[in-house]
Amino acid sequence: MSAIDGVTLRTVRAGYKEWDRADLTFVELAEGTAVAGLFTQNVCCSTEVEMGREQVKSGRARALVVNAGNANAFTGYRGREAVEQIAAQVAGGIGCEASEVFVSSTGVIGVPLPKDKAREGVAAALRAEPCDWEDVARAIGTTDTYTKGAHASAMIGETKVHLVGVIKGSGMIAPDMATMLGYIFTDAAVEPAFLQDMLSAANGPTFSSITVDSDTSTSDTVLAFATGKAGNAPLAGFDDAGADAFAAALHDVCRQLAHLVVRDGEGATKFIEIAVGGAVSDESARRIGLAIANSPLVKTAIAGEDANWGRVVMAVGKAGEPADRDKLSIGFGGTWAARDGLPLADYDEAPVAAHLKGQDIRIDVDIGLGDGRATVWTCDLTHGYIEINADYRT
Amino acid sequence: MSAIDGVTLRTVRAGYKEWDRADLTFVELAEGTAVAGLFTQNVCCSTEVEMGREQVKSGRARALVVNAGNANAFTGYRGREAVEQIAAQVAGGIGCEASEVFVSSTGVIGVPLPKDKAREGVAAALRAEPCDWEDVARAIGTTDTYTKGAHASAMIGETKVHLVGVIKGSGMIAPDMATMLGYIFTDAAVEPAFLQDMLSAANGPTFSSITVDSDTSTSDTVLAFATGKAGNAPLAGFDDAGADAFAAALHDVCRQLAHLVVRDGEGATKFIEIAVGGAVSDESARRIGLAIANSPLVKTAIAGEDANWGRVVMAVGKAGEPADRDKLSIGFGGTWAARDGLPLADYDEAPVAAHLKGQDIRIDVDIGLGDGRATVWTCDLTHGYIEINADYRT
Repeated sequence: MSAIDGVTLRTVRAGYKEWDRADLTFVELAEGTAVAGLFTQNVCCSTEVEMGREQVKSGRARALVVNAGNANAFTGYRGREAVEQIAAQVAGGIGCEASEVFVSSTGVIGVPLPKDKAREGVAAALRAEPCDWEDVARAIGTTDTYTKGAHASAMIGETKVHLVGVIKGSGMIAPDMATMLGYIFTDAAVEPAFLQDMLSAANGPTFSSITVDSDTSTSDTVLAFATGKAGNAPLAGFDDAGADAFAAALHDVCRQLAHLVVRDGEGATKFIEIAVGGAVSDESARRIGLAIANSPLVKTAIAGEDANWGRVVMAVGKAGEPADRDKLSIGFGGTWAARDGLPLADYDEAPVAAHLKGQDIRIDVDIGLGDGRATVWTCDLTHGYIEINADYRT
Repeated sequence: MSAIDGVTLRTVRAGYKEWDRADLTFVELAEGTAVAGLFTQNVCCSTEVEMGREQVKSGRARALVVNAGNANAFTGYRGREAVEQIAAQVAGGIGCEASEVFVSSTGVIGVPLPKDKAREGVAAALRAEPCDWEDVARAIGTTDTYTKGAHASAMIGETKVHLVGVIKGSGMIAPDMATMLGYIFTDAAVEPAFLQDMLSAANGPTFSSITVDSDTSTSDTVLAFATGKAGNAPLAGFDDAGADAFAAALHDVCRQLAHLVVRDGEGATKFIEIAVGGAVSDESARRIGLAIANSPLVKTAIAGEDANWGRVVMAVGKAGEPADRDKLSIGFGGTWAARDGLPLADYDEAPVAAHLKGQDIRIDVDIGLGDGRATVWTCDLTHGYIEINADYRT
């Protein structure tokens, strides 16, 4: 992934955990950079989320700091002091307002971010040599098993603009708006309010349509930064030339990032796409899809490569959305197993069994009531998830 | 558990699955037996649930048939024919209306109950020798690892009445009203409408306050039968002498049965009681409790004997109920780990670690906002759950 003009990347080891890797990321942004953001709906959110939600209203950013290994959530005034210290130190170092420095933290909840380690880490970061996207994607990760990035480009008039995104996330993924920590950078010039509109629009069918384990993090954050260095006429609304192309590119990056998170779901061995049609509305379809995606019994069936479509019926029925058992159809990998409330008399499980042995699984659900449709993504539930999460802190 | 006058138990092997055990239960009830019921909220419910919901309105029952190994859910007209056949056959055999014969089925979804096996099974059951509660509790089970029964008694005036309950359930347990299949029998004389009132009242803090895996079955049913053979003056309302005592005994049986289901949760190694106080209402407290109880990250932490109270914070925050991070307190086994939004400075994890090594785990949550309180029960999430459910059909 290529560099984005106006974005300088640095990572250092602050030592938030006993590990030998960079865990503090410092991204410096050119003057005039626009910012937009999405934040968790979890009411026990972290100080970083509370502050970010306020900061994003100004629409301007000069720096991003990401701490990995400590979520600094549920840490009261001590956690807040650590964030304020980081913002002030960075602001002093690069000459900007502390309110233009965005901070994210991810890791264990309930342990205040150690201020001394943060201070030394930021000091080192201000002096560090620039690095590349791969370094950043690695430094923001926790239980992630690989680095996650995506890129796209778009033409705005005669100007080619570039977008790059990095994301971390693997467990505690049931975004009520977004997933864990994701950052998208572009050299395009975009007015902050319009950047927010486009990011919010992209959220629904991407970050808000994935789930690993139904648990919504206290720290979920997605930020989009537009440095304007590409020199295009600033985008302010969908009537502007190139706005549609840019919005499509942004959507594309968000979708790629969201899928990467699910593929790296804790313990995942399968990537599951659930396409729901025939619901009374798109939102109803999304809720039904998430009920299926969050069902431990559906997820373990897929882990066992078992075409147990009865569990999909169960999950549709418990979703709390309009459904009629006798109009419901369920299929796997393009083969219907049941139509209109009845198992198919000539149902041949062989192609379904073959499909389920693959890594990419497709479940089709036709509610049979209306035109509402949505696609959501999840992963299977395996022994790996138990191993990772029954002994995470130690 | 002693016999209940007016209740005759029989079990036979219909052979719904390839197993060498009784899987068809036939309970004959004395003339005049009152009945009340609770049924799943899952909109893709089974024919048995649909029919039971209608039948219970008459308030009278003469027989119960329970099929184990096949849920007969999502089987359309073929499944309905099988249920109607069973009811007609039993009605002919004992001389009652088909509408007085209640049928339940549990097992795999989507496979019509085989009518020939049901016919032979019922014919054998009509001729079989009576058996005891242990036989019935075993015959209604599927993945259950032990039989589950409870009993209580109450004085109605000078008459001692007896209650016995049996239940099955282990997975697909997130009752939106009740759990899997539970049956309570009493020799007391109770008017059907009042029996329904008492059963519905007992449901909220018992069956509707447990969860194993957040998945709500298509077949959940709890039925209460009162034969009247004890000879007490029939109970018709709470003003009647002995009504409070009987309601308390009924509640006690429901609570015992609900707890037995959670203790036998698929793969469970720990029984977890979650007591939520300080919520804005009792219902809000129950919802917060269930959000904690359904969190895979909380359940795996308990499996790992890890006092990861940050995950409890997360679950409170995602519940969608009023909560204030800075007023929240969390404790394990009677020791507070965090109070008023802050980890306790002098928090000693040693007693908590010792508590978590036990089998009975207690989580206390104080929301700090009001007087609402509720207690819910669940189990941990272990490799055992994955083993059972990733390979159930085969």
